Amino acid sequence: MEGVRLSEAGILAIETYFPRQCVRQADLEKFDGVSSGKYTIGLGQDEMAFVDDREDIVSICTTVVRRLVAKQGLDLGSIGRLEVGTETIIDKSKSVKTALMDLFCQAGNTDVEGVDSTNACYGGTAAVFNTLSWMESPWWDGRYGLVVCGDIAVYERGPARPTGGAGAVAILFGINPQPPIRFEINARATHMEHTYDFFKPRLGCEYPTVNGAETLSCYLRALDRCYQRLKKRTGSTGSVSDLADYAVFHAPFNKMVRKSFARLRYNDYLTDSASVVDPQGKLSRFRDVPLADSYTDKELEKAFVNESSDLYKKMVEPGDWLAKRIGNAYTASLWSSLAAILEEKGDELVGKRILMFSYGSGLASSMFIVRVASPIGKLSSSLFIKDRLDARRIVDPEHFTDVLERKEKKYCTFSVEPAQELAELWPQTTCLERIDDIGRRFYTST
Amino acid sequence: MEGVRLSEAGILAIETYFPRQCVRQADLEKFDGVSSGKYTIGLGQDEMAFVDDREDIVSICTTVVRRLVAKQGLDLGSIGRLEVGTETIIDKSKSVKTALMDLFCQAGNTDVEGVDSTNACYGGTAAVFNTLSWMESPWWDGRYGLVVCGDIAVYERGPARPTGGAGAVAILFGINPQPPIRFEINARATHMEHTYDFFKPRLGCEYPTVNGAETLSCYLRALDRCYQRLKKRTGSTGSVSDLADYAVFHAPFNKMVRKSFARLRYNDYLTDSASVVDPQGKLSRFRDVPLADSYTDKELEKAFVNESSDLYKKMVEPGDWLAKRIGNAYTASLWSSLAAILEEKGDELVGKRILMFSYGSGLASSMFIVRVASPIGKLSSSLFIKDRLDARRIVDPEHFTDVLERKEKKYCTFSVEPAQELAELWPQTTCLERIDDIGRRFYTST
Repeated sequence: MEGVRLSEAGILAIETYFPRQCVRQADLEKFDGVSSGKYTIGLGQDEMAFVDDREDIVSICTTVVRRLVAKQGLDLGSIGRLEVGTETIIDKSKSVKTALMDLFCQAGNTDVEGVDSTNACYGGTAAVFNTLSWMESPWWDGRYGLVVCGDIAVYERGPARPTGGAGAVAILFGINPQPPIRFEINARATHMEHTYDFFKPRLGCEYPTVNGAETLSCYLRALDRCYQRLKKRTGSTGSVSDLADYAVFHAPFNKMVRKSFARLRYNDYLTDSASVVDPQGKLSRFRDVPLADSYTDKELEKAFVNESSDLYKKMVEPGDWLAKRIGNAYTASLWSSLAAILEEKGDELVGKRILMFSYGSGLASSMFIVRVASPIGKLSSSLFIKDRLDARRIVDPEHFTDVLERKEKKYCTFSVEPAQELAELWPQTTCLERIDDIGRRFYTST
Repeated sequence: MEGVRLSEAGILAIETYFPRQCVRQADLEKFDGVSSGKYTIGLGQDEMAFVDDREDIVSICTTVVRRLVAKQGLDLGSIGRLEVGTETIIDKSKSVKTALMDLFCQAGNTDVEGVDSTNACYGGTAAVFNTLSWMESPWWDGRYGLVVCGDIAVYERGPARPTGGAGAVAILFGINPQPPIRFEINARATHMEHTYDFFKPRLGCEYPTVNGAETLSCYLRALDRCYQRLKKRTGSTGSVSDLADYAVFHAPFNKMVRKSFARLRYNDYLTDSASVVDPQGKLSRFRDVPLADSYTDKELEKAFVNESSDLYKKMVEPGDWLAKRIGNAYTASLWSSLAAILEEKGDELVGKRILMFSYGSGLASSMFIVRVASPIGKLSSSLFIKDRLDARRIVDPEHFTDVLERKEKKYCTFSVEPAQELAELWPQTTCLERIDDIGRRFYTST
């Protein structure tokens, strides 16, 4: 580990945004008439953030950038690259990045490379990778790079609806001053495939088309492939706890993160049975489960969830709580979970390695390792994620459902004046003022 | 110029694709009942390529990759990065890149970074920039990078319809062997803004929303800003012909390219009146035209189109003919025009510099310089662009209009079996077999 080369470029600052309103999963269970615990225990989710008609992908991305810029006292002219990762498409041609240029133009900076990167929940990670490459290439112009990941995830009424969410994250990259959060060169593994596990072919409808069972096995297969590739690349043969101190996953819902970590342990077991805790040899019966069956074998899953329980608490729990309380923020999920672990652990992380797994349906996936190389106290203590989560307005499922039905009817319509009261938004939040008769969007701020 | 640093990474090979069928602009003029010359002289366009229901963005991108791979005898395992630039969105989540992974998975290579880059016609250039950065960063894994740009441009009946087009281009990047086509480091200038000159907010409709007058002035303003920035960055004070030997532009239609080159000369004139040919001082009356008026001043435009006429023939014509015959292929426009000049000039280009201007509405733009550093004879003689253009099937405007009307009705519908005869496609062309009831697309090949 000590011989590992770190990127010169890294994360200087990070900022998160989520809407001021949310619905409780326990309330949704009652409202939907499902068994108690189906969402809270079955999915492992506590609350779900959602937006009303005042917020869209441009507004939440603008807000998170404004927050970052204000908090860091950044001169917008010091940013040479801005890239957005999102799958919340409100225009098939115009990028969210160009809408964000409004802020930069006001500051007199139009010389900002980068556009939008898109593939489901993976676009933000692609944007991060692009920015890291740019910053250590001859093309770097010496300025900061900014990556914004944001999404609004909504589903039709039915079993997928409680797996929605909303959020955005802005990540500032730089080389000078030396960034505290760096990336381990050569500790990156990628796996891509052509799949239809989750996609959005219904262009005139906000909801995705999901094959629930398939997307879970695609996720786990991608996880396997990335993990095996990463271990090979880094020469790691033992447990995931030898590879990293913490782990952060793209979080469709918490139970999936739980299963994913167990799956890493299953991989560890197959490579080296001594790397897992199995004093009574109870796991040996899973050694010969055919690969294809292993993705759906409930006994196997349960056994490794149990086996990995203590390690999960230590390695994953410090970063898993934000996604449980805002839901799946797609491209923002992984990167806001990184922010969560930074807030949770602060300078305890110095010298520690965080394993990250990014997954986007369709499918694109990468696993990589981040190292906290120097103190992050100021960064982590200024995030105020928990404070803001606790300060949210909890609405009842009827209201949540009404909002989604109203948005469903208005999706892709023009000449719209949003109805939501500005007082329902956080202060200093960019929000939609109107959509004109040809679909141009105009924004204001609380 | 000799002291200029070149990128190590560069273009090893390039391949173009356009549909086998096209419509003549002169025929369209008659069909539309407009004055003779409105499209052929007014727009400067000869023919327009279009696709029927057998081809979509995935099929044309797959075909161009297959062509490149076959021609170069490439092992698909030797490609470590694949990125797509497009604004032809058939899915709001799943990238075209992941659909292309089908080819790579068949060859056993799933370790391929990169997704889709999107902002109107600029996405391909963003993908190229990303690939260049990756290849000269610590993240490069030693393999080739492949960029695919493709689009299908169609417009509602009316004045914009003849500005459609279709095409795709695949560009192979590498460092070893030393690539003949390289990029001048520091000779890149970018300008981005938030505009609504051309956008696609009608998600359930294939056609864009265009403000024709605004998009032309946005294009020219972006051109001004990039050109001025590039001249400053490279220390160039004279004529465009001092900066480069050739120039290639994103080509919405040829007259726009003509105007753009004239605009560069107008810029040259404002900087140094001695850099333009004006023996009788006829241009001096344009010196004090206010900037805002200069974009719409027809006399000014005409004067500089005349002034730049000889230089246009020398610098721009060698690369402007492909776009005149296929129309606007959006992200593929600029990069297939580069292929055109390579075919046209071959090894005459060795040691020459090509100025390139990329524009995507919304808006994102960059100007940069490519250098042909070593012989390209094999590359240029194997493109066969003109041969293929001449071998196309010319259809009448009635048929073209029928196809677009049929596609308009079927846009975003599922359970579709395409009606176009396979014999109408080029041989060895990937094409759509069917769209199933939930929108999954399946392909076959001629």
